[in-house]
Amino acid sequence: MAIPHLHSVQSVRVSSPCRISFPNQYHCGRSNFSRKSSSLVYASTRNFDRDLRLQSKVETVLDSVKWDDKGLAVAIAQNVDTGAILMQGFANREAVATTVSSRKATFYSRSRSTLWTKGETSNNFINVQEIFLDCDRDSIIYLGKPDGPTCHTGSETCYYTPMLDLLEHRQDEEHKLALTTLYSLESTIAKRKEELEVPESGKPSWTRRILSDEKLLCSKIREEADELCRTLEENEDRLRAASEMADVLYHGMALLARKGVKMEEVLEILRRRFSQSGIEEKRNRKSQA
Amino acid sequence: MAIPHLHSVQSVRVSSPCRISFPNQYHCGRSNFSRKSSSLVYASTRNFDRDLRLQSKVETVLDSVKWDDKGLAVAIAQNVDTGAILMQGFANREAVATTVSSRKATFYSRSRSTLWTKGETSNNFINVQEIFLDCDRDSIIYLGKPDGPTCHTGSETCYYTPMLDLLEHRQDEEHKLALTTLYSLESTIAKRKEELEVPESGKPSWTRRILSDEKLLCSKIREEADELCRTLEENEDRLRAASEMADVLYHGMALLARKGVKMEEVLEILRRRFSQSGIEEKRNRKSQA
Repeated sequence: MAIPHLHSVQSVRVSSPCRISFPNQYHCGRSNFSRKSSSLVYASTRNFDRDLRLQSKVETVLDSVKWDDKGLAVAIAQNVDTGAILMQGFANREAVATTVSSRKATFYSRSRSTLWTKGETSNNFINVQEIFLDCDRDSIIYLGKPDGPTCHTGSETCYYTPMLDLLEHRQDEEHKLALTTLYSLESTIAKRKEELEVPESGKPSWTRRILSDEKLLCSKIREEADELCRTLEENEDRLRAASEMADVLYHGMALLARKGVKMEEVLEILRRRFSQSGIEEKRNRKSQA
Repeated sequence: MAIPHLHSVQSVRVSSPCRISFPNQYHCGRSNFSRKSSSLVYASTRNFDRDLRLQSKVETVLDSVKWDDKGLAVAIAQNVDTGAILMQGFANREAVATTVSSRKATFYSRSRSTLWTKGETSNNFINVQEIFLDCDRDSIIYLGKPDGPTCHTGSETCYYTPMLDLLEHRQDEEHKLALTTLYSLESTIAKRKEELEVPESGKPSWTRRILSDEKLLCSKIREEADELCRTLEENEDRLRAASEMADVLYHGMALLARKGVKMEEVLEILRRRFSQSGIEEKRNRKSQA
């Protein structure tokens, strides 16, 4: 489908029209400020023309954003590995341009009327890997990796107040992160692990049993992997394959809980491998050996 | 950490102050409109007091939202299983109240000055399972399951325009969904599967090899599951466990690709099992047998 008007400069009101400083001229006075955005950074004069072309392209893309009457668009920061929505702010033209050049999620503070980079106080930057515009071009995702908890309260994300839970369970206060399925499961398994300290009356849950019995857990992981394979080997239906993969995932995550490993770490490994063609490279190496 | 001022009614300007109709009095005139929100629906008069208390609680929670000068807050719809950000709109008091009662993601259209429920035209509703408020109480996540593609263009989500890719690869138009790591990997494997039709010159990639060799793929899945188990049995370090789990996941996903199964289906199974204590129940049943 066509992406509308990328090269048509739209007439927009911008509260703080800016020249974009390209290449990277973003300075925040921190020694640990990563310069990993170097794919866009080049200093030699022979690249001057390329710089100009890039700057022009950035201006064109920014022109295509439908800034609101205050020159702002909604900007949502999302964890590239877990998918967690970390925070939401607003960005003006300069904030997006700064994010493009610095690769640190940068917003416009409406209360302080100033640009701010998440992490400039806490050091918990959000390292942006890609910026997405929505179909209407008035909403932006900063897809990136946070250096630490994003919320100023110390919470991993800013979304920890579940409205329906509050209404249904009549609790006045509750801190429950907005977790998607995989991380909700991880959280459940982690809770069962904590509960191992407490003697259980009655029949132990399956999760408790595999968490407290290494032999049982490992035999289940091998068994479920085998069952997953047999869905292919014995041409079982696709729903059976989905179900067996769910079993593999669940039991594997119980093992991770035993080892104190988060799924986010597993996904980070996969991201790094694939961005470096690492699995391909590793396997080819293995098969050559 | 404390959730601020849940019970303190804040002075807010609301563009369309509303009485909330509780229980479920949301009607959209569609026969397929789910009434699964029945946990909040009760008709008997003996529950009248409970209804009133619930209505009062909803009003209190809505009072705690920091509506902007137009009576709006940002509302982000997120896929509960994949974590994908589906769309972003704005919600007023009435839109959130409607979402609470109908469990269908509902927004306020600024251009049409009217409430709208995503799916009322396309039938692709977003079935909301939980609503989260952020720390500042001016941003909302509708965490739910979409019935189909969310974007009016037919795209799965509204975010498919990658800004940095556009800048770096000099492509004027590109359609690339904002995918987090797991789904980016899934997409890569799916591409390799498509490429199986085309004869490859040179050494085939590992992904291509396992996709085209069922025996090799299954032997790798069993091998990686075994290696994962051994990180526990032989007390290997936690990074080794993360790495082996990454291998299990990657090879398992290659098998899913062969079977035409999406990770989203696997996660949906896990969500249903855990919300129904299904795994617990299934395992207990198995162990009794």
